[in-house]
Amino acid sequence: MKITYLLYDGITALDVVGSYEFLSRLPQAKIQFAGTHKGEVKTDSTILRLHTDFTIDEITSTDILIIPGATISFLEVIQNKKLLQWIRNIHESTRYTTSISSGSIILAAAGILDKKIATSHWYSKRFLESYDVTISNKRYVQDGKIITSAGVTAGMDLSLHLCEILSDAETAHAIQLILEYEPEPHITAGFMKNADKKTIERAKRKIKDDAFRNSASSII
Amino acid sequence: MKITYLLYDGITALDVVGSYEFLSRLPQAKIQFAGTHKGEVKTDSTILRLHTDFTIDEITSTDILIIPGATISFLEVIQNKKLLQWIRNIHESTRYTTSISSGSIILAAAGILDKKIATSHWYSKRFLESYDVTISNKRYVQDGKIITSAGVTAGMDLSLHLCEILSDAETAHAIQLILEYEPEPHITAGFMKNADKKTIERAKRKIKDDAFRNSASSII
Repeated sequence: MKITYLLYDGITALDVVGSYEFLSRLPQAKIQFAGTHKGEVKTDSTILRLHTDFTIDEITSTDILIIPGATISFLEVIQNKKLLQWIRNIHESTRYTTSISSGSIILAAAGILDKKIATSHWYSKRFLESYDVTISNKRYVQDGKIITSAGVTAGMDLSLHLCEILSDAETAHAIQLILEYEPEPHITAGFMKNADKKTIERAKRKIKDDAFRNSASSII
Repeated sequence: MKITYLLYDGITALDVVGSYEFLSRLPQAKIQFAGTHKGEVKTDSTILRLHTDFTIDEITSTDILIIPGATISFLEVIQNKKLLQWIRNIHESTRYTTSISSGSIILAAAGILDKKIATSHWYSKRFLESYDVTISNKRYVQDGKIITSAGVTAGMDLSLHLCEILSDAETAHAIQLILEYEPEPHITAGFMKNADKKTIERAKRKIKDDAFRNSASSII
C-alpha cells in the first residue's frame, strides 16, 4: 500500500511527522516522500529539514495521497500549474486523497474540493472560502474518498482515522497506544471554539510574524 | 535561550518534532540539534531522517536539555559512557533537564534521576524500575528542574508546559492554538489506564516486531 506525502519548501514539519508516525506503523505501508525536487526540503521553522526520495515525475499512482500544510508557502505551491496537474492526475489513482492543515488550499486550487465538504487550519480557512467548498469545523472531515483535517496536530486525528479504515480498529488502537495518543492538555486553547479573543489575536500576530520572517511573500 | 535536543540513531521522529514545533515558536528560543556525530541521524522508522548541526563536544552549556526516546536504541545509548558524562556535565548548566518517552532511561543511566519522580513510555518503564526512581503515571511529571514525559505524543504536553513556564500562559495558549493542539481522539486507547488487554498485547507485539526489524539488538 503506497502512501505518498507531497513535501515542499516552507512545509510545517509536524504536519508530516505527526501523520507519518501513525501511518508508517501500518502493516504493508510503503511511505514515499515526493516533491518537485529530490533531496532536502526546508521547513517553515527553518532549522529542521526533511527529505524527498522521489520527484513527482517518478510517481504516477498511489493508494493514499497526503498533502501537508505550511505557514505561508502553500500560496506559492498553488501557483505551480505542473504540480496542480500532477495532483489531479494522481488523485485519479488514489483510494484516499487527503490534506492536513493548509494543505487543503492546495487540493482546492487543484479543483479537487469542488462541491465537497472540507476543512483547513483556522488561519487558512479564509482561502478555502474563495472555492466552491462547504467548510467544516471538525478536526477532520471525510467526503467520499477525500479527507481533510484542521491545523497541524489535527493531522494525527486524520491519520488515526486512516489507520482504522485502512486496517481495522484493533490495529489503530495498538498504534495509538504505542504513540500514547490520548493527550490531556492542561489548558484548553487549542481549538478555535474554545480559545478566547486575546489568544486568537496573539496567535494571528505570531503566524504573521513567522511568515514575514521566513518568506518574502506579502500575501499574508 | 538555548534549547538543545540530543539526537541519536534509532530515535523516534515524533518525540523530536512534536516538541520542536512548540518550543521553536517561543520568542528567544535558539534550537540546537546535537549528537555524537554531525549530519544525518536515522530514525526508528528508517525512512524519515533528521540532522544534527552540532556534536556534543561543541555544546558545553544549554538552558534546556531535551532527550527524546527511541523504540530500542536508547539501550545502546546508555552504553556510551562519554555521552552519559556529557549529559551529567551539561545538566549542571540547565534551567530544565527533560526527557520524552524512553529518553528518561538515558537520564536515569546518567544518574540524574536518582531519588527523583519520573516517567517514561509505558513499554520502557520496566527499565526505570532498575534505578532509584519513583515512577509516575502522569503524561509528564516535574521534580525540581527535571521534567520527564510519557510516550511519544506526551512530549507535546511536556513542551506545552515548558512554553508556559519559560514564557507565560498567554504565549503558551497562542502556540497551542497555532498548532491546534486540543485533540478529540475518537477512540480512547492511547493511555495504558484506558487500553484493553487485547490492545496492550497487540501494541507490545508490534513494538517487538519493529525493534527486531530495525535492530540487531536482543535486549527487547
